[in-house]
Amino acid sequence: MPEVITLGETMVLMNPTEAGPLRYVDRFKKQIAGAETNVAIGINKLGHSTGWISRLGSDEFGQYVLSVIKGEGVDTSRVIMDVDTPTGVFFKERRILGLSQVYYYRRQSAASYMLPEDLDEEYIASARYLHLTGITPALSSSCLATVQQAIEIAHQNNVLVSFDPNIRFKLWDRRKAKEILLSLIREVDILLPGVKEADMLLGKMDEPEDYAQKFIEMGPEIVALKLGKTGSYIADKEKGRIVEGFSSTEVDAAGAGDAFAAGFLSGLLEGKDIFEAAMIANAAGAFAVTLPGDYEAFPTSQDLNAFLKGNSDIFR
Amino acid sequence: MPEVITLGETMVLMNPTEAGPLRYVDRFKKQIAGAETNVAIGINKLGHSTGWISRLGSDEFGQYVLSVIKGEGVDTSRVIMDVDTPTGVFFKERRILGLSQVYYYRRQSAASYMLPEDLDEEYIASARYLHLTGITPALSSSCLATVQQAIEIAHQNNVLVSFDPNIRFKLWDRRKAKEILLSLIREVDILLPGVKEADMLLGKMDEPEDYAQKFIEMGPEIVALKLGKTGSYIADKEKGRIVEGFSSTEVDAAGAGDAFAAGFLSGLLEGKDIFEAAMIANAAGAFAVTLPGDYEAFPTSQDLNAFLKGNSDIFR
Amino acid sequence: MPEVITLGETMVLMNPTEAGPLRYVDRFKKQIAGAETNVAIGINKLGHSTGWISRLGSDEFGQYVLSVIKGEGVDTSRVIMDVDTPTGVFFKERRILGLSQVYYYRRQSAASYMLPEDLDEEYIASARYLHLTGITPALSSSCLATVQQAIEIAHQNNVLVSFDPNIRFKLWDRRKAKEILLSLIREVDILLPGVKEADMLLGKMDEPEDYAQKFIEMGPEIVALKLGKTGSYIADKEKGRIVEGFSSTEVDAAGAGDAFAAGFLSGLLEGKDIFEAAMIANAAGAFAVTLPGDYEAFPTSQDLNAFLKGNSDIFR
Amino acid sequence: MPEVITLGETMVLMNPTEAGPLRYVDRFKKQIAGAETNVAIGINKLGHSTGWISRLGSDEFGQYVLSVIKGEGVDTSRVIMDVDTPTGVFFKERRILGLSQVYYYRRQSAASYMLPEDLDEEYIASARYLHLTGITPALSSSCLATVQQAIEIAHQNNVLVSFDPNIRFKLWDRRKAKEILLSLIREVDILLPGVKEADMLLGKMDEPEDYAQKFIEMGPEIVALKLGKTGSYIADKEKGRIVEGFSSTEVDAAGAGDAFAAGFLSGLLEGKDIFEAAMIANAAGAFAVTLPGDYEAFPTSQDLNAFLKGNSDIFR
Amino acid sequence: MPEVITLGETMVLMNPTEAGPLRYVDRFKKQIAGAETNVAIGINKLGHSTGWISRLGSDEFGQYVLSVIKGEGVDTSRVIMDVDTPTGVFFKERRILGLSQVYYYRRQSAASYMLPEDLDEEYIASARYLHLTGITPALSSSCLATVQQAIEIAHQNNVLVSFDPNIRFKLWDRRKAKEILLSLIREVDILLPGVKEADMLLGKMDEPEDYAQKFIEMGPEIVALKLGKTGSYIADKEKGRIVEGFSSTEVDAAGAGDAFAAGFLSGLLEGKDIFEAAMIANAAGAFAVTLPGDYEAFPTSQDLNAFLKGNSDIFR
Amino acid sequence: MPEVITLGETMVLMNPTEAGPLRYVDRFKKQIAGAETNVAIGINKLGHSTGWISRLGSDEFGQYVLSVIKGEGVDTSRVIMDVDTPTGVFFKERRILGLSQVYYYRRQSAASYMLPEDLDEEYIASARYLHLTGITPALSSSCLATVQQAIEIAHQNNVLVSFDPNIRFKLWDRRKAKEILLSLIREVDILLPGVKEADMLLGKMDEPEDYAQKFIEMGPEIVALKLGKTGSYIADKEKGRIVEGFSSTEVDAAGAGDAFAAGFLSGLLEGKDIFEAAMIANAAGAFAVTLPGDYEAFPTSQDLNAFLKGNSDIFR
Repeated sequence: MPEVITLGETMVLMNPTEAGPLRYVDRFKKQIAGAETNVAIGINKLGHSTGWISRLGSDEFGQYVLSVIKGEGVDTSRVIMDVDTPTGVFFKERRILGLSQVYYYRRQSAASYMLPEDLDEEYIASARYLHLTGITPALSSSCLATVQQAIEIAHQNNVLVSFDPNIRFKLWDRRKAKEILLSLIREVDILLPGVKEADMLLGKMDEPEDYAQKFIEMGPEIVALKLGKTGSYIADKEKGRIVEGFSSTEVDAAGAGDAFAAGFLSGLLEGKDIFEAAMIANAAGAFAVTLPGDYEAFPTSQDLNAFLKGNSDIFR
Repeated sequence: MPEVITLGETMVLMNPTEAGPLRYVDRFKKQIAGAETNVAIGINKLGHSTGWISRLGSDEFGQYVLSVIKGEGVDTSRVIMDVDTPTGVFFKERRILGLSQVYYYRRQSAASYMLPEDLDEEYIASARYLHLTGITPALSSSCLATVQQAIEIAHQNNVLVSFDPNIRFKLWDRRKAKEILLSLIREVDILLPGVKEADMLLGKMDEPEDYAQKFIEMGPEIVALKLGKTGSYIADKEKGRIVEGFSSTEVDAAGAGDAFAAGFLSGLLEGKDIFEAAMIANAAGAFAVTLPGDYEAFPTSQDLNAFLKGNSDIFR
Repeated sequence: MPEVITLGETMVLMNPTEAGPLRYVDRFKKQIAGAETNVAIGINKLGHSTGWISRLGSDEFGQYVLSVIKGEGVDTSRVIMDVDTPTGVFFKERRILGLSQVYYYRRQSAASYMLPEDLDEEYIASARYLHLTGITPALSSSCLATVQQAIEIAHQNNVLVSFDPNIRFKLWDRRKAKEILLSLIREVDILLPGVKEADMLLGKMDEPEDYAQKFIEMGPEIVALKLGKTGSYIADKEKGRIVEGFSSTEVDAAGAGDAFAAGFLSGLLEGKDIFEAAMIANAAGAFAVTLPGDYEAFPTSQDLNAFLKGNSDIFR
Repeated sequence: MPEVITLGETMVLMNPTEAGPLRYVDRFKKQIAGAETNVAIGINKLGHSTGWISRLGSDEFGQYVLSVIKGEGVDTSRVIMDVDTPTGVFFKERRILGLSQVYYYRRQSAASYMLPEDLDEEYIASARYLHLTGITPALSSSCLATVQQAIEIAHQNNVLVSFDPNIRFKLWDRRKAKEILLSLIREVDILLPGVKEADMLLGKMDEPEDYAQKFIEMGPEIVALKLGKTGSYIADKEKGRIVEGFSSTEVDAAGAGDAFAAGFLSGLLEGKDIFEAAMIANAAGAFAVTLPGDYEAFPTSQDLNAFLKGNSDIFR
Repeated sequence: MPEVITLGETMVLMNPTEAGPLRYVDRFKKQIAGAETNVAIGINKLGHSTGWISRLGSDEFGQYVLSVIKGEGVDTSRVIMDVDTPTGVFFKERRILGLSQVYYYRRQSAASYMLPEDLDEEYIASARYLHLTGITPALSSSCLATVQQAIEIAHQNNVLVSFDPNIRFKLWDRRKAKEILLSLIREVDILLPGVKEADMLLGKMDEPEDYAQKFIEMGPEIVALKLGKTGSYIADKEKGRIVEGFSSTEVDAAGAGDAFAAGFLSGLLEGKDIFEAAMIANAAGAFAVTLPGDYEAFPTSQDLNAFLKGNSDIFR
Repeated sequence: MPEVITLGETMVLMNPTEAGPLRYVDRFKKQIAGAETNVAIGINKLGHSTGWISRLGSDEFGQYVLSVIKGEGVDTSRVIMDVDTPTGVFFKERRILGLSQVYYYRRQSAASYMLPEDLDEEYIASARYLHLTGITPALSSSCLATVQQAIEIAHQNNVLVSFDPNIRFKLWDRRKAKEILLSLIREVDILLPGVKEADMLLGKMDEPEDYAQKFIEMGPEIVALKLGKTGSYIADKEKGRIVEGFSSTEVDAAGAGDAFAAGFLSGLLEGKDIFEAAMIANAAGAFAVTLPGDYEAFPTSQDLNAFLKGNSDIFR
């Protein structure tokens, strides 16, 4: 049974082969993307078993998403293929100057029909961590109920819940997002927000430790606040500090947070302390941004070791 | 003001660069496709002015669709760009042995919100023909109402209505489709069904003239029944016969019926009789199937003349 | 546990994106190909579980081959990833007029080091069929020993052995090939040769039944002799006849025999008689030749049913 | 009628899909490029109407150029399609270290046959600005006469003339270029030179204001001297100062000056003062360099506002 | 020294990666094409040495053309690289139904400035055949003079002249073309016209032998009249008959005549009689049409032997 | 006869069209690469004649490699095409953070069978320089013997030997590599190591001059120690100093050392002193890293002059 189980929607990503406004881009590459499967794949590459609970359309795109995730070694035995609803699709647009966007075609997608009944308690109970994001509750009310039920099951079975807010204002309105995300955060064990997400959820604060302390007061045992290239601020009830990031050439920032989560949970699975785990998380994030796909740049454990040892390609 | 006005949804077409099940196809080319704009573009290429009434999302894909259609010379002054709804998208799948498919992402698209209020009576009144298809009424009830209103306006202003059933069972159920299409057919002047559509609407009959006569009894003045490579059976209240088709190499049949409509209406605009118009329509259809896009293979008047004269490229 | 188990080498296929002599082709598409995994994937698509025993380099190409096959749903739990030897690679060349070729870079590849010790008796014993080809014994003497050992295990556990000669003169010399293939054929239950392979192995005969009878005298219970577009001649000890083929547009013949094997074994797994199984096999072969990859055109059970019922894409 | 009218040649641009010497580049993307239509498209994107006067071959490339420009919303009603002369074509070469080049195939192109008679006085008279460049007079003597005639018409109708020297030594010799450009500059209202062009035309001077003052003495009311990444020096008869530029990642500098012109004229059309207009112009230039095409990266008014407000893509 | 020397223009071919009107084609592949170098390359592939006399621009495209031809083994020691004139470029358009076209950008190209002084008498004198086409005299008067001078040199040195009319009405007017081609035909030893060219030059006749006899009366010793898929009619002063063609799948007919010439001259160089040589020529033509480039599908001697022996790719 | 002769293996390079782990890269571009032909091509571009001694498979890839090198103007008259052994192939993988790799498929390739008997003494004797690398001796013992024999011939004929260690640990073990490379270094006249290679061969030293002096004590007259972006340390028996490098944007470092060697030898051929030659070498290296292929970015003499003069593309 998988060490880490995730739950959420994964879509076909139509990734433009060129940068620029989509009106001018004429070729797209088919890939997949989903915050939760990014994390599952990332943990797998780092040597730990993972499983994914979801729904896909039983159309060609659903088969494609399934085969990629299965091919990456993630357990897909709990994925439901639904003949009546389509697999979600989205388009990326890579522009400069903060104008990049995504265009979703996921309304009433198969995954948006996930139900609490889809959850296999025994399956979840067998894991050490359940990883969730703030995207799923934004998809539909049955998705929200599913997330809540999954947290409930985890708690009853001593499975730790990690949570990445992953705020997406294209999916729901700000007020509702904030309210629900805060209610979920109160129920999780490990919280992995970005600093701008912390701003949005808690209001602007002065220092990373202010956000972390505030979140810890709300419930989570561990908070890993992502600070971009700076690194991350990591805290639990007793201690906290910044763990420095690694520099790399950013091609596409999407997936960096998921790589961070994968690295952090992998570290914890290996018994590392929160600061060591954060260093792995930071390194995984540095890898993640170097390619245009979501998870393709994630490191294997071998890559990570070579990177942390500063190995180079001389004389190969 | 345009000689022919059309009304309907045009989507971004993600066209696979290879044949085969979409799970294996990894690159897509962005194009546009819409039965009604296909007809409008086709008539334009044959030298007559056209206009298109629709709604598009005011997103990058909407801008793209608009610029392509405008670039083809179709009047788009009545197209509404809507900030709240997305432009529809669909994927083609080219397979062998009758297994080809399309995958629509058009539910709640901008065009599905078309309203009778979108129609500018003066604009429609200025045209000689209004061309409609059976796709639009399948999109939503407001779209159906818009089509009915457009027919009403046309009748009140002596604009002839041409209609292509374009049956799409992916969009509505068979019983409802049949009922509404038959009700619309009763109101139109020129009917352009395929023979299998005639089957579906009227039940299986023995001969092309049987379908044509039956349709004419229902209302239309002219029926042009498309028979595939054989050509077409053309009839009005007084006469009818098969007009032979032209052979060409089929790469993608999509758009052939639209080219036929474009050719037929162009012929009528030029004062040709229905059999001459059908010959042009058949020739346009023979061009249309030779490329994978919907309208790119449609002939210009120059192409058509060269083709009908049997001109070849020797000594160029 | 899988219903059918296969054994053999799968390589990265560098597939030219254009036809023509490779000196002029400048772009290649990375795919995978292997006769045995083609069969395993084909059976999977038709609804039955399969497993694959092999060795791959633990390099990027090995990871790729593994993920594709796993993604197709084939059990890869018995595949060994070897750090010391590379994954095999080959290039296809599509030319006209019978000049097409392949260029192998598979000498001393990971798979050529397969050993009898790699075989898990319990795993093989759990299956209903073991499928082998004449390629594996050509790779190395340890591969030949592995094939012989696998047959032995199958026999001891009442697993039926099916065998496709798949003669490759690029891999071994004619005399040795003939001698070893004939020795293996004596040990198998189901033999699936092409008619030219039968020629080469038995000498030229007059009629399909002559070859079939001769082979059956040698050992196999069932012989399915592939006759190209004509179909296949199917026989067991009591009966035999030609089962007609289906016509389709051939783009790349590679994989057709593997699709045939997949269809035939699927038919048998479903309890069909040999002639019914051959009809499925013929249909699968008709699908297989329609795309440039090896297995991408193989039908799903859904495709196969639609095809056999003559379903078309009208009104989609 | 358009607010801004331009006049000049637009060609098909064969844009290499890779950097490097063209002998090694094997794929090209078809686009369009023309300094004047770049400006017209740029102004259109910023919300103002534009028109373009030119000649194109009535060949496939001419149809393509026409449809792109029409699709961008530029009025092309005064473009003449000529059956006897070809549409111009050019190839870009992207190299490092200042070695980039273009290769023109535009001698005796359709546009080089533009005549003063092509000009519709009423059309030009209806505009607020006429934008011209130093490329057109270099194409042929009839093109020079056409430019002179257009200026004459503008002056007689109180249409302000803006002028970008756009020096191209591939098109004419230095001495002749200098003489004619200086004679034209004396007749224009708004001058938009680059600083190296100012050097070439006036001789090396110490400070931006020296060039500006000298030009203003020659005739123009407004001079906007482009200083690259530094920004621009803007002056009229009474005042002058540097307006700082914006930083962005340069992929292809071609089109930056045209974006500047588009931004500057848009600002003036909106009643902004010259320094505000220059800020818009600088921002438009910062967008322009970020993609390999000429105008594809130009901002819409929406983009510009988001950029100037510092909006980012967080939480989309 | 080369056995066969040719003379003429070779251009960069921008070959569309898709069929269809060029207005819609968006990617082009850079290749080279020139009737005379096609022949030179073809003869080289069949095992005989060749040389090419021409002029190229000393720009990137000229370097490219030179390197491809040199890379094919053709002697280019007499090619002049000119800094003042550009290398010619042309675009192919693949359409159906006889509407395919080429678009030349070769006016005042480097090759159009070829001069009689460019010819090295000793070089030409050393060859066994001089191959010329009717394209070169159409390029400019100096090119015509160069062709006439080359023929003169050949005659004085007992070098046989072969000539392919290659009529191109895009390059000159019909009357002038006919007059000059007929004057050249009177001076050549081997004439290789297509049957439609014979029509155009001699007027319509009943039978192939009528054309051949008429040409032989005019001067040539050998006439090889190309009849398309039928094959060719071959005659000298004493005998004549049809040599049957080979069937193959036509993708692009361009280059077929050049392959024919290459095969025919190769046959003669090997001492074969005219009918044997024509069989080789027909086979080379059958290869040539199977790929979109001009010469890439031409056979090597190895290919040709395999083809004529009917070798297939079974068991590779 | 060539001024510089080289000896070694050149392979087909399958170059990924995207960065990232090869498991995810799906398209490859066919190019060629070989350290020695890189040098030969580079010297040719700088205006000096070169020749290459090697073996290639007489397969399509061998023909391709041969035609590219021949097309670049390198004399290939001594290259042996072998029907029994394949042309080597390798794949590049462009990753970030020092994780880039190559994957060789060159074991038992044609070139690995090079023999001392392949060497034509007269050919080598006619050159001014013989350039060798440390790759060839790693390929096989017969390759090592060939290199030793070539040095012997050079010495006997007063041809200077230049040598680039080009250490490749994928090809041999460290101890053997060090031993053989040091033994070869003792026999050469010009040594061109990278500073990390010097480390590996001599042990870590403090300053560039320490390495240079030590090497000069071993035998070579001239040592050019490559220091990356810093430039190079150049020394002979009497003098030595750092020659500063040029900055450029690195896309792919492969080939930089070969460009350096080409520039250095070109400088010496032109009678420049070692520091002037090193400046050319440094400049060539700065060009080389700017494109993904090995030699495509190498400068021509024209490029080099423009670069050294600081020419820019203004006003082209």
